[in-house]
Amino acid sequence: MTALPPGSAAAVETTRTEVCALHAELLRWNLVTWTSGNISARIPGTDLIAIKPSGVTYDDLTPESIVVCDLSGAVVDGRHAPSSDTDAHAYVYRAMPEVGGVVHTHSPYATAWAARNEPIPCAITAMADEFGDDIPVGPFALIGGDDIGKGIVATLTGHRSPAVLMSGHGVFTIGPGPKAAVKAAVMCEDVARTVHLARQNGPVERLPQHHIDALYDRYQNVYGQR
Amino acid sequence: MTALPPGSAAAVETTRTEVCALHAELLRWNLVTWTSGNISARIPGTDLIAIKPSGVTYDDLTPESIVVCDLSGAVVDGRHAPSSDTDAHAYVYRAMPEVGGVVHTHSPYATAWAARNEPIPCAITAMADEFGDDIPVGPFALIGGDDIGKGIVATLTGHRSPAVLMSGHGVFTIGPGPKAAVKAAVMCEDVARTVHLARQNGPVERLPQHHIDALYDRYQNVYGQR
Amino acid sequence: MTALPPGSAAAVETTRTEVCALHAELLRWNLVTWTSGNISARIPGTDLIAIKPSGVTYDDLTPESIVVCDLSGAVVDGRHAPSSDTDAHAYVYRAMPEVGGVVHTHSPYATAWAARNEPIPCAITAMADEFGDDIPVGPFALIGGDDIGKGIVATLTGHRSPAVLMSGHGVFTIGPGPKAAVKAAVMCEDVARTVHLARQNGPVERLPQHHIDALYDRYQNVYGQR
Amino acid sequence: MTALPPGSAAAVETTRTEVCALHAELLRWNLVTWTSGNISARIPGTDLIAIKPSGVTYDDLTPESIVVCDLSGAVVDGRHAPSSDTDAHAYVYRAMPEVGGVVHTHSPYATAWAARNEPIPCAITAMADEFGDDIPVGPFALIGGDDIGKGIVATLTGHRSPAVLMSGHGVFTIGPGPKAAVKAAVMCEDVARTVHLARQNGPVERLPQHHIDALYDRYQNVYGQR
Repeated sequence: MTALPPGSAAAVETTRTEVCALHAELLRWNLVTWTSGNISARIPGTDLIAIKPSGVTYDDLTPESIVVCDLSGAVVDGRHAPSSDTDAHAYVYRAMPEVGGVVHTHSPYATAWAARNEPIPCAITAMADEFGDDIPVGPFALIGGDDIGKGIVATLTGHRSPAVLMSGHGVFTIGPGPKAAVKAAVMCEDVARTVHLARQNGPVERLPQHHIDALYDRYQNVYGQR
Repeated sequence: MTALPPGSAAAVETTRTEVCALHAELLRWNLVTWTSGNISARIPGTDLIAIKPSGVTYDDLTPESIVVCDLSGAVVDGRHAPSSDTDAHAYVYRAMPEVGGVVHTHSPYATAWAARNEPIPCAITAMADEFGDDIPVGPFALIGGDDIGKGIVATLTGHRSPAVLMSGHGVFTIGPGPKAAVKAAVMCEDVARTVHLARQNGPVERLPQHHIDALYDRYQNVYGQR
Repeated sequence: MTALPPGSAAAVETTRTEVCALHAELLRWNLVTWTSGNISARIPGTDLIAIKPSGVTYDDLTPESIVVCDLSGAVVDGRHAPSSDTDAHAYVYRAMPEVGGVVHTHSPYATAWAARNEPIPCAITAMADEFGDDIPVGPFALIGGDDIGKGIVATLTGHRSPAVLMSGHGVFTIGPGPKAAVKAAVMCEDVARTVHLARQNGPVERLPQHHIDALYDRYQNVYGQR
Repeated sequence: MTALPPGSAAAVETTRTEVCALHAELLRWNLVTWTSGNISARIPGTDLIAIKPSGVTYDDLTPESIVVCDLSGAVVDGRHAPSSDTDAHAYVYRAMPEVGGVVHTHSPYATAWAARNEPIPCAITAMADEFGDDIPVGPFALIGGDDIGKGIVATLTGHRSPAVLMSGHGVFTIGPGPKAAVKAAVMCEDVARTVHLARQNGPVERLPQHHIDALYDRYQNVYGQR
């Protein structure tokens, strides 16, 4: 089926290509197993998103296999069924207009925190830089319908962290575009692992709030290329 | 030696090729070390199975090296001795006609649970999706003869889980075909690791039964491409 | 911008190429995630250093992208902003003229020790060989300005170890050249992991001082090619 | 220098090539870091061994770089200094004429057991198969001279296990040839990891002795290709 709006073809193709390619980063950084994670992106200039097809292995992904949906999660273009997490992604795009990319994984260290319903304390500077706070836990919610999406939005709205640990489930991250959301997923697993390892051999303290604030401010405003 | 039934040549070749190729997934997902895991498949339209040769490294596997056995485990075609686990595989195919693929590994996190004789509690949604329950522990049994096969069949018959942790030994998984059994082995190690990590830093609760039921039902019926 | 001193072009190009290539070792030995580590080198015959650009992924690094700075951290040549850790690197080169290479990572096991403010005890011979002592913890310091550099220099001056765990942050290593500093970063994570694993299942004893001394002396003077 | 015995050229070249190639297995199975492990082999028909050069990275190994030594550890042919562990290897070859290959690593899980001076209990069938017993701990010994070699030989003589955990140091394995010794090193780390993981979440029991005996006997006599 296809019902793409006039003039959207170039943006659709570019976004499909980017979303397809970014899934390789999930594999490279060991965030996914078999078909267990997915990425979506808002297609610029449209009310559409591009998202991984359901149950397709990363080796078999092609730009054409990426499914285009509207913001209700209905398929607009594509030969595959979209990710079974499409409802959650779509809810986030509807509720948070500043979000241009969403990533979902069951990355092991972060999901271990989620299984205990325990936020990751902001105990290292890399976490203060990227997340600006503890990485919070969202509610347990069943897949299908809007419950997961509502949980993500309720937890991340007004929070510095672009990552949420959904209780008993896994990680959702957001960003202004899909690459930023992938980076947040990668860094979430990285800090989940480091703080996990730290805590195995003794107690770990959250950094003082004024240090977290200073680090977050600097990283958001000074780091990288202008 | 060879005693392949008339008309089976194409199915035998296709199955050997698939079984050979699937062993690369065991390496890719870090389930095996040196020669420590094996895959078999029922050859469609026959009472034969195709299985890894014993002690051959994954680099040296070729479709021709895959051994064809009957359901008693006797070699029907092939130049190599079959896996030393052939008796266990063959027993499962005899007792469970719905099974088309069997995988055996000593994947480290799952085998750690097996070494403690402890089922993996169904504490995360990915486990409810794929296994629909705790991953059970089967009895300790010595290799050779039917004891391992009996333990697998006794544990998995009537159980949602396609994976069993054989006490003090490792993992056996089953599926309608060999790729499904490989996926079960991959996901078994994935959830074994995540729940292991979760439990290292605090207690982990099994999900409520009605959530497990809902997740399992949806995953078996909605996930993937139709 | 460029203000390279006359006659320095060959040394600048060689050093940029080496610094660029060495970043692949950080990836290969799993010391870095996304863009989270950086390497610098003193450019022979000059008062300049070559350092990773800020926020550039390892895939995108080229020799030309490596930034040349003076010992105050000001850019002398390059189209990119230098690493946000440049101040710390530059301070070390100013204070320790024998240092020709500096590496910074957030490698997970070493950073876990840093998060607990706990030195890694010299409990295995590989640690005695390479570090000659416990790997020490330096003070917590905010990025920007000279605080991190001062902490590194204060901790490593007069210490056998070429690695310091900066509290709540990560690892800095030094060497006579950048390759030696990379080796120290690689070995720091290796021993951080082994001693972490050892301690998880029981107490670990520091080696006796006379054994540490003997091992360190031999490794520094006999190991390798002359 | 060279003083190869007449008629040994082909055996020397074959052994150098094999020893060089086998080092790739140490990297593949994550047993070594930077230059931290080494392999040697007895050269058939001679009283010579071929061994890794000291401090050369695995990327830079070539068959020609492999050093030929006599059984006292003195260099007979080669342009490099031999491994700093050559004395230990040579002692083993002198004392155990049935040994044709020796491997030394600091693989992390096995070295963690060595750091605690704790044998790995024979708690899983894969260990009974390959090692036939607990993996024993040898004495702490300093590098240089015969102390390490004596410790290896004293521990492994009359023991089923081809692997010994040298206290506070790492692993030495032996075999009838270098590939068998490499396999023992690979499997040693594999079972060190699995039993480590098992013990992290609860007590682990050694298998009953009659099961260990039955498994070891079968694996040594039935497994693999005849």
